[in-house]
Amino acid sequence: MKNNQWLLAARPKGEPTRENWKYNETEVGAPGPGEILVKVEYISLDPAMRGWMNDSKSYIEPVQLGEVMRAGAVGEVLESNDDKFSAGDKVYGSFGVQQYAVCSTQGVHKVDPDLAPLERYLGVLGMPGMTAYFGLLKTGLPEQGETVVVSGAAGAVGGVVGQIAKIKGCRVVGIAGGQQKCDYLTRELGFDAVVDYKNEDVKKALRAACPDGVDVYFDNVGGDILDAVLTQINLRARIVICGAISQYNNTSAVKGPSNYLSLLVNRARMEGIVVFDNVKHYGEAAREMAGWIGQGKLKAKEHVVEGIDTFPDTLMMLFRGENFGKLVLKVNHE
Amino acid sequence: MKNNQWLLAARPKGEPTRENWKYNETEVGAPGPGEILVKVEYISLDPAMRGWMNDSKSYIEPVQLGEVMRAGAVGEVLESNDDKFSAGDKVYGSFGVQQYAVCSTQGVHKVDPDLAPLERYLGVLGMPGMTAYFGLLKTGLPEQGETVVVSGAAGAVGGVVGQIAKIKGCRVVGIAGGQQKCDYLTRELGFDAVVDYKNEDVKKALRAACPDGVDVYFDNVGGDILDAVLTQINLRARIVICGAISQYNNTSAVKGPSNYLSLLVNRARMEGIVVFDNVKHYGEAAREMAGWIGQGKLKAKEHVVEGIDTFPDTLMMLFRGENFGKLVLKVNHE
Repeated sequence: MKNNQWLLAARPKGEPTRENWKYNETEVGAPGPGEILVKVEYISLDPAMRGWMNDSKSYIEPVQLGEVMRAGAVGEVLESNDDKFSAGDKVYGSFGVQQYAVCSTQGVHKVDPDLAPLERYLGVLGMPGMTAYFGLLKTGLPEQGETVVVSGAAGAVGGVVGQIAKIKGCRVVGIAGGQQKCDYLTRELGFDAVVDYKNEDVKKALRAACPDGVDVYFDNVGGDILDAVLTQINLRARIVICGAISQYNNTSAVKGPSNYLSLLVNRARMEGIVVFDNVKHYGEAAREMAGWIGQGKLKAKEHVVEGIDTFPDTLMMLFRGENFGKLVLKVNHE
Repeated sequence: MKNNQWLLAARPKGEPTRENWKYNETEVGAPGPGEILVKVEYISLDPAMRGWMNDSKSYIEPVQLGEVMRAGAVGEVLESNDDKFSAGDKVYGSFGVQQYAVCSTQGVHKVDPDLAPLERYLGVLGMPGMTAYFGLLKTGLPEQGETVVVSGAAGAVGGVVGQIAKIKGCRVVGIAGGQQKCDYLTRELGFDAVVDYKNEDVKKALRAACPDGVDVYFDNVGGDILDAVLTQINLRARIVICGAISQYNNTSAVKGPSNYLSLLVNRARMEGIVVFDNVKHYGEAAREMAGWIGQGKLKAKEHVVEGIDTFPDTLMMLFRGENFGKLVLKVNHE
């Protein structure tokens, strides 16, 4: 059995290009003691992958040159040398950008294909959903009646943040690019207002959308949008730093938030989050979110692109704001 | 009786110059109902004054053009139409940059000249001391054995921050400019290590001074030093944003902290403080700090410059790092 996979061939300077990747074909090996063989079906494409390509200290080790690119994924167990898994099980794990994975079962867990389509376990029922849930509720600490703003609002994390904030009784304002995404946020996800950063002056539009100022800002993008929101925050506002996709491909220094002294004037807080810190509480969160999905209060949207061979290009959709919902790569095995 | 005073004549662009001020001579008026007449003895010069000169929203109203420059000060009551004050009382209040103040007694409180020299009520026993106490203890949340770094360490706030952190059992590292200040911090105030930002590579020196990383950073300066410290913070570090004196005279945008994504990697927090929020608890804080002073654990240093006529130049010492301890202006009345 052939296994097509993408290896990290060179560390990018700025935007990743085709030259940073090597498309490799190997034979699928047999799982060793305690290992499983997984047929990968959907691969999660995430902004964080850009960081893993750098050779620098972060919350997780960099991917080494020549290694299969790290990625969360869902698939089917074909062979198992671990009693907890059987052939036919659908599983989530860090299987990498490849068609088949032979790996230990550490961090692997079963998912229920009858409860939700498999790709959803990479989105609202996976890391992005958990990131939104814990980042908003544990760090953003929204209270009923407060105004919550989220950037990357039509992305995998942002859409969930906004919907949970609505469930908690907040006024919710999304920042997204383009009329289609903005319409989706207000019409489908129930956002109270939107700012189209591609077609509006963000600061001015924010002021109109947030007549009572901003109490919680969940930031996925950084850069000028973070700076614009900082001018509108209220006393004791909470800014959740989840990501900064606008800055990940910079070749010069990251743009720091020039308006950070607004934190002082407003006695406000800016705090970083990493979803893995909440791993012990994923279960409770998943149950609560499943309940909301069942009640129609939490909707999911995946953006599925087919073909593992498209990986380098498809990944770049994230940085161009071209994905609409959780971006996943569907792996074909023919 | 003549009253010399400094009025804000024009709003500065960049560094304040002599042209921003008007030296004015008036007659001392009589206090109206409920008012007092105060002979000002010491005027507090603070970095925050630069912000009050701008015509922009902040935690306090800007000083209006033509008004006496706002300043905290201590002096003696000469006449009182308020039962709570008598001639001869020594008092603290926002008396402004002038020799005599006629004002309401709102925010005015008595100080005890037998307990400490009058100028100390502008330093460790005044706003800077309160800022250090509440900023460090309520927002920095230092724990025994942690490493606390403070910039502007030889300034009015920084010196107190470091000494309180020592009292709480922390390793304390000060950032200051010049050998004399650095020696003072280690020899007189008991700091464990210092970084001389005028003569050392801050990032390299910090790494050497903080072998276990930085748990709490109390920032008075902003700019490159904030960025350097961000590269050294530990998991769940707390960064207290008290000021950004390196940025107050910028004519271009404030330099935002380029390394703010270290907050994400380290799940760390950056939070702004304003001392006035703690006004209800000043009394307890003053009692605790007076106890430390009595035990020799908390030392005070004031930098006294004489002559109200020197105000425009003396103020600039703050922005050039030329003050050594709390900068106060002594008012002569001959």
